[in-house]
Amino acid sequence: MGPPKAASAAIQANLSQIKAYPDPSYHDLRVALSHHHQISPDWILPGNGSAELLTWASRDFSSLKGTALLAPAFGDYGRSLQAVSAPIWPVPLPVDKWLVHPEESADQALSEGLEALIAQILAQGLSPKAFGLLINNPHNPTGWRFSSQALLPYLRRFGLVVVDEAFMDFFPPPQQNSLIHQVRHFPNLVVLRSLTKFYSLPGLRMGYGIAHPQRLQRWQAWRDPWPVNALAAVAAIAALQDHDFQQASWRWIEEARSQLQQGLAQLPGLTPLNGSANYLLVGCDRSVTELQRQLLQRHRILIRDCLSFEALGDRYFRVAVRTVSDNQKLIDALGAVII
Amino acid sequence: MGPPKAASAAIQANLSQIKAYPDPSYHDLRVALSHHHQISPDWILPGNGSAELLTWASRDFSSLKGTALLAPAFGDYGRSLQAVSAPIWPVPLPVDKWLVHPEESADQALSEGLEALIAQILAQGLSPKAFGLLINNPHNPTGWRFSSQALLPYLRRFGLVVVDEAFMDFFPPPQQNSLIHQVRHFPNLVVLRSLTKFYSLPGLRMGYGIAHPQRLQRWQAWRDPWPVNALAAVAAIAALQDHDFQQASWRWIEEARSQLQQGLAQLPGLTPLNGSANYLLVGCDRSVTELQRQLLQRHRILIRDCLSFEALGDRYFRVAVRTVSDNQKLIDALGAVII
Repeated sequence: MGPPKAASAAIQANLSQIKAYPDPSYHDLRVALSHHHQISPDWILPGNGSAELLTWASRDFSSLKGTALLAPAFGDYGRSLQAVSAPIWPVPLPVDKWLVHPEESADQALSEGLEALIAQILAQGLSPKAFGLLINNPHNPTGWRFSSQALLPYLRRFGLVVVDEAFMDFFPPPQQNSLIHQVRHFPNLVVLRSLTKFYSLPGLRMGYGIAHPQRLQRWQAWRDPWPVNALAAVAAIAALQDHDFQQASWRWIEEARSQLQQGLAQLPGLTPLNGSANYLLVGCDRSVTELQRQLLQRHRILIRDCLSFEALGDRYFRVAVRTVSDNQKLIDALGAVII
Repeated sequence: MGPPKAASAAIQANLSQIKAYPDPSYHDLRVALSHHHQISPDWILPGNGSAELLTWASRDFSSLKGTALLAPAFGDYGRSLQAVSAPIWPVPLPVDKWLVHPEESADQALSEGLEALIAQILAQGLSPKAFGLLINNPHNPTGWRFSSQALLPYLRRFGLVVVDEAFMDFFPPPQQNSLIHQVRHFPNLVVLRSLTKFYSLPGLRMGYGIAHPQRLQRWQAWRDPWPVNALAAVAAIAALQDHDFQQASWRWIEEARSQLQQGLAQLPGLTPLNGSANYLLVGCDRSVTELQRQLLQRHRILIRDCLSFEALGDRYFRVAVRTVSDNQKLIDALGAVII
């Protein structure tokens, strides 16, 4: 859907703000986020993209014995944990199995993986409370969405749980199963959100964390005083208030995602997973590297291979949900290459 | 001088870049900085303000036994060192003494302070190589400038030297005594620069570090992949290429600073230090808190007290060099309040 026009307009209207330091408390931005999520501003910390906040979350993880990380997972999770020498305990997700048994739920896969990890922790005479869990929901790259019921037990069992909800905005609020309002009950919970995905603003670097004020104050003391650029702050406020953009995006994603999913499912050898974000992970019965090469050469379309996800390899690719007409072009091109 | 018009124009012309991730290698920006400083792009790391780079410099300092920090110093140095539990070894600067003996040079004050610290280190049976030095040049808040000759011996003696040259751009290049080109000879040297001060762009958050590529690669692995906002990157390139703005700024600062310095020196009880940046530190024979209150009430001018600098207290204030007419307003208002 491109960035909301209100965001660009806010940047133009506030261009003169480049000559002043941003307010280190980001008061106006935190108030806008507070209205958006119905949570007090003290519980919100803006960051230079949620990627910056991941750096500080990882510093918290580094004081634990280990951090459970789903495999596959967004690559920057590993980077940020390794940067502070926080040991990673992988939780394999049975993506291959799911291609054959799509009736098994994401929740079931998650619970099985985490219970196996907890058993492993207990077998070593350790407590799960000495471990962390870093997860995103909806999950990248599978597009799976975990229910709150599936996640809640692990808030009680792990010492620190960071849920990256970068793609949660693609659901209209009544359908979002965010853990934001659980932060009041769980001081060991951090929810990360981002304006990058839903609002198409990756160039602005604007994300935020929601957690207990004490944790956020500690993070703030660790980092420099002005992590969010003044223009990113005003654009974010405008984007959050652009309800027309939000409504239009929700209408688009529903329709365009199911069109893409159905179109891909009809092609021989392709099995799109049942995604809930603005992308689909697709299993493929042949080499994706080869498919990628042909699509690029013959149709000038580049699909994202999954070689960078150790757990996936050459039999998966991930595609963005775009406009209905772009999606159709991709489906047609894939059809022409595959047959 | 306000931000260069070229910077605002570049933001407007590239507004569509908010919808794409910044290039994580910041290639174009690094090439522009490379031309500006005549140093290879590999030796340059852009940051979310030099404040962000200070965070990573401090992480390097934290592996040393201690870090020498001038007192007074920019407050964020202490914050960033404390954030990683890096012990601070203060080096008092004799600012009070200098008010009475202005013929003593900044270099002399620096050498005396650092030699005393080194003696203290040696007396404990430790090596200065196990210590770091974090310094800015020109120095904030005194405005003193240290010569390269005064600094060079300490590159050989300390294990890590970080020189924050945030205010160095206020000198035309032939007069800049930057240590940038010493990085080739000293892998233990980091030079921090910023577009915040000279280009009046604090809202954009744009700074950079110059150091050995191995150190910069390590810092890059510690932080998130896109620390500089896309609009800050294009504005920085435009600002660096705006030679008219640079020339005009150099003409202005020379004239306006000496006008302000002379005007303040003529007022009874005020002793401006001989500054080399875009501000002057002024010694005052009475309470600055009281002076500040009167100026604000009667003339709606706010001067910056120095209570936040432990080493200075209530007998100093710092004022920015502004336009000749603004400077005159300040001088007149101070004159009216003091007499």
